[in-house]
Amino acid sequence: MFKVAQFGAGRIGAIHARNIAAHPALSLEYVVDPIQESARALASTYGAKVASAEEVFANPQIDAVIVASSTDTHLDHCLAAARAGKAVWCEKPLDLDLDRLKARLADLEPIADRLLLGFQRRFDPTFRALHRRLNAGEIGEVETVHVTSHDPAPPPVSYIKVSGGIFKDMTIHDFDVARWILGGEIVSVFASASNLVDPAIGKAGDFDVAKVILRTAGGKICVISNTRRSGYGYDQRIEAYGQRGRLAANNMTETQVETWTEAGAAADRFENFFLTRYAQAYAAEANHFADILAGTAKPLAGIADGLGALELAVAAEQSARTGLPVPISSLG
Amino acid sequence: MFKVAQFGAGRIGAIHARNIAAHPALSLEYVVDPIQESARALASTYGAKVASAEEVFANPQIDAVIVASSTDTHLDHCLAAARAGKAVWCEKPLDLDLDRLKARLADLEPIADRLLLGFQRRFDPTFRALHRRLNAGEIGEVETVHVTSHDPAPPPVSYIKVSGGIFKDMTIHDFDVARWILGGEIVSVFASASNLVDPAIGKAGDFDVAKVILRTAGGKICVISNTRRSGYGYDQRIEAYGQRGRLAANNMTETQVETWTEAGAAADRFENFFLTRYAQAYAAEANHFADILAGTAKPLAGIADGLGALELAVAAEQSARTGLPVPISSLG
Amino acid sequence: MFKVAQFGAGRIGAIHARNIAAHPALSLEYVVDPIQESARALASTYGAKVASAEEVFANPQIDAVIVASSTDTHLDHCLAAARAGKAVWCEKPLDLDLDRLKARLADLEPIADRLLLGFQRRFDPTFRALHRRLNAGEIGEVETVHVTSHDPAPPPVSYIKVSGGIFKDMTIHDFDVARWILGGEIVSVFASASNLVDPAIGKAGDFDVAKVILRTAGGKICVISNTRRSGYGYDQRIEAYGQRGRLAANNMTETQVETWTEAGAAADRFENFFLTRYAQAYAAEANHFADILAGTAKPLAGIADGLGALELAVAAEQSARTGLPVPISSLG
Amino acid sequence: MFKVAQFGAGRIGAIHARNIAAHPALSLEYVVDPIQESARALASTYGAKVASAEEVFANPQIDAVIVASSTDTHLDHCLAAARAGKAVWCEKPLDLDLDRLKARLADLEPIADRLLLGFQRRFDPTFRALHRRLNAGEIGEVETVHVTSHDPAPPPVSYIKVSGGIFKDMTIHDFDVARWILGGEIVSVFASASNLVDPAIGKAGDFDVAKVILRTAGGKICVISNTRRSGYGYDQRIEAYGQRGRLAANNMTETQVETWTEAGAAADRFENFFLTRYAQAYAAEANHFADILAGTAKPLAGIADGLGALELAVAAEQSARTGLPVPISSLG
Repeated sequence: MFKVAQFGAGRIGAIHARNIAAHPALSLEYVVDPIQESARALASTYGAKVASAEEVFANPQIDAVIVASSTDTHLDHCLAAARAGKAVWCEKPLDLDLDRLKARLADLEPIADRLLLGFQRRFDPTFRALHRRLNAGEIGEVETVHVTSHDPAPPPVSYIKVSGGIFKDMTIHDFDVARWILGGEIVSVFASASNLVDPAIGKAGDFDVAKVILRTAGGKICVISNTRRSGYGYDQRIEAYGQRGRLAANNMTETQVETWTEAGAAADRFENFFLTRYAQAYAAEANHFADILAGTAKPLAGIADGLGALELAVAAEQSARTGLPVPISSLG
Repeated sequence: MFKVAQFGAGRIGAIHARNIAAHPALSLEYVVDPIQESARALASTYGAKVASAEEVFANPQIDAVIVASSTDTHLDHCLAAARAGKAVWCEKPLDLDLDRLKARLADLEPIADRLLLGFQRRFDPTFRALHRRLNAGEIGEVETVHVTSHDPAPPPVSYIKVSGGIFKDMTIHDFDVARWILGGEIVSVFASASNLVDPAIGKAGDFDVAKVILRTAGGKICVISNTRRSGYGYDQRIEAYGQRGRLAANNMTETQVETWTEAGAAADRFENFFLTRYAQAYAAEANHFADILAGTAKPLAGIADGLGALELAVAAEQSARTGLPVPISSLG
Repeated sequence: MFKVAQFGAGRIGAIHARNIAAHPALSLEYVVDPIQESARALASTYGAKVASAEEVFANPQIDAVIVASSTDTHLDHCLAAARAGKAVWCEKPLDLDLDRLKARLADLEPIADRLLLGFQRRFDPTFRALHRRLNAGEIGEVETVHVTSHDPAPPPVSYIKVSGGIFKDMTIHDFDVARWILGGEIVSVFASASNLVDPAIGKAGDFDVAKVILRTAGGKICVISNTRRSGYGYDQRIEAYGQRGRLAANNMTETQVETWTEAGAAADRFENFFLTRYAQAYAAEANHFADILAGTAKPLAGIADGLGALELAVAAEQSARTGLPVPISSLG
Repeated sequence: MFKVAQFGAGRIGAIHARNIAAHPALSLEYVVDPIQESARALASTYGAKVASAEEVFANPQIDAVIVASSTDTHLDHCLAAARAGKAVWCEKPLDLDLDRLKARLADLEPIADRLLLGFQRRFDPTFRALHRRLNAGEIGEVETVHVTSHDPAPPPVSYIKVSGGIFKDMTIHDFDVARWILGGEIVSVFASASNLVDPAIGKAGDFDVAKVILRTAGGKICVISNTRRSGYGYDQRIEAYGQRGRLAANNMTETQVETWTEAGAAADRFENFFLTRYAQAYAAEANHFADILAGTAKPLAGIADGLGALELAVAAEQSARTGLPVPISSLG
């Protein structure tokens, strides 16, 4: 039984706490949150206790920490965990500041094999199946990839302002999917982005629609499509095109009911909320974290993946601002 | 070039005339219709002439006749064609009266290899593909079959009254599909029928909803579903269940457009009118008739098929009236 | 917190035990199973204890029992629970013997409002959505229903011999679905059944393929399709046809991946195992049982539903044996 | 009845000739082709005569010409038609040389309202329905568009060498679709292209895989995806994303048959040959040309569309070669 402390008692924290509590090899011991009431509520639901960060890191009984607190605390908690020798499961991103992250990489190195970065899409059963079948050669060598990632509705502008911008906040997941599915080193990024959804987002200096082209050294190409407001639900798809065909990961619908009327055939809307859409992924991620703690697995997404996706986000931002493609080596 | 005369200048006649005119090996020479204006209009569109039935049958230049006139004239035209030695393409049914048809079978015998009965579903590309793949063994031996045949909206009661009833008018197509797909001799029929759609149909002594179970000597089972009013369009499906799987012939939609909104995903309604739905089937049937005339094909649907389907219709009617299954041998 | 004891530590028992353990308002206290090792293993996984039936029924602390033991013990456990005043969640069927069940109905009466019968399909999110939308009038008044329930592969003949036959063992779920969806009193049953899948099943005196027609007093019609071996997976569908359209509950697939190759487009196979297919249903059923214990819900499926489905199964068996439709009133 | 002469008796010429012959308001009088045998064969099939270009343009009886000859002759035939005052239906492109085309625009001007350019996708029923529903406001204002246009297999390198390159030969259709669907003036083009399919195509100086981003003055964005070899068939899709949803034009399959086996559900491959896939479009285009001749319609695709698409192709080529986006105004 591995003893776990969790930073953050918000929406995603509630998901992780439940999955930890239900796992036969993991035990939730502490919950840490600046909002004491949230910490207490979550802790009591699962028989855990409230603690401070210092107490957690000083406690030799604690094997691992889950970092599901606000983004600006991620890197500090990871660094503290590295110093204390504890395994970490950290929500993305490690940090919004690429230079700061690079400067502290060496300090994270000691727990590189025990730091799981929360790119949960790699754990989604449908996306995993696509990845597995692609690597099994079902369509031959992959040549191009399309990633569609459309949110149903934009977050409040207050969130946008601290989000790091669309590329670091939203596309970062797609950059990780691209790196995972595409194979090959990405050498350039071109992004075309607009403010079409909410003028307030534009006023805040951000984009709300973006299309990105990634290119590998070998000439493989990935297209990413993002919007902050789809109008039709949470659209999460991957299409991989290879020598002998196409693998597509389609959306999930809320139920399998179809209605046929004079107007035609209608299917249910998509699983519309990311916590519902990726519920299975979060549970699988908890299983994987238990395997890492048991020493039977290495992180499917780790520090290098966090760095790689962040580099692409920074390059995409620069491309969208300048109108020019950005070579990735220029960031080195 | 085979010279063809056509009886009937109505809806289905217009389809056949166009397909004949477009066919490189067929030439439409005469149109016969009691409504002279209709005959003239159709003939002039395709460079044909108006004639009487007597003129057509007496003309040695005419190789074949198409019988697309009213149902009560079908058998007489076929008998006249048999006497004149002309090939026939006759719309279903050969006749509504099973006894009368049986009494005249011998007279039709001389043109048995040149009488094509218009069960057009056998020529539909989707249904043909299902039939071909079933016979190629894709799902092993067929065990059961479901035939769905739902009309969008009921015809006027005036039509119902002369239609011969739902089983002879509507289900007859499904009986033919069942005989074609199921294989094996059908030994009993059970029909459960209701009047749920239009009380006027019930007052006219007919049913408007029916489910039929056919059973072969070997224990294979076919279920047919009919309604005169689906509320959602023209639903035409076949499902074949075999040892190793299921072959399904699904509906066609008007276009391939999907609309995704907050409400979910919506596809176009089905091809809703039987002349549109089966447009390809009618053209393929004309090709097949040309092959029969050329002596390179025998009728895919002929006299025995007309008789077989009519026997099932009579049995189904009896079953629905008595509430008991009807053995087919009892009709012999 | 309601204290629960469970009879049966087999496959379905494992599912229920996990759902009870995870439920905030239910606590699994005891596991009872003639195979002591199974009982101990399941109990220890969830912190429960092993006990005998006598201990459970004598213990005033126990609020409810789950009956997931072998079919021949169901009715006795339910009767004991009724005597002890404990709520029951009983797997279907209450009993295989219609006469015996009728003779003991009065003894079950005291817990009629607290006896949940495990017709889990009523709790499946897709089937529930169909039921809700039908009752909300989305397609007007329902007229006919098609229930497809095909197993991937037949059970061993040893199971067939104690199963009560296909109608009591397999179709019984579909009879319950029919009663739930169709509305209106069913007045007659016609069943056509065959032995096409496994000759050993025929030798054991059972059928392995069946099509059933149910008819209500108002002329509504339901068709049920069963096979013990589909060859293509676990096929679980409901189609409801109404005045203005069709509601269809389609199958779930293992993932949302599609493969497009020269051969066409391929989707994943269906969720193939009933415990996986109905995993959400079992969890929802546990929630519902907690609501019954809390007094905030009455059983969505109870004693009358068990009796009603069993009557249809007996009638279907008689129909398949005699070849004649069976009026339901004849069973009264 | 409008009298038509046709240049070109090849594959596409055969399609047009048949549609002209079948049209009640059009009459095919002459076929012109440097390969006399082809001209004679096509002419005799439809009761037309063989002629030279000079005879056609000098003949005052001829109302219109169809230009379905080799690409290098298109512009000359159009210019000759303009001088002779004859209407033209010209296969795309008007010319491969943007400068040459611009230089002769004024000479084409007299027949601008009677010159139909063969961008047949505008006539495809599915694409037309998407366009109509988009303009009817079904998903609000369009924001971004994805055009997928993947060929099943690459043409021979001999064709590649005279094709003008992937952007002028293949993407040109997608540029036209983008201009038609996207709305708004396109101000920049970015293309990322590779040689991944056939090294011989790379040796010939061309690409075989390309992704293109078009951007309008208002910030709307279109992504085009091309490959010369999909491995899975002829993939022709349009997705339009707007304020309130998504409209998708999906592929057609050869039949509506599905096969369900242990492996999952399989649908037919796509209509795989462009002449079959767009058969309805070509027929609709002939109808539209008849309307232009009758003076009841103006060309849905005309000279400006040919010029607009060619400008985008030239810009895309430049972008793919330089790695930089190309502003469209720079071409002016």
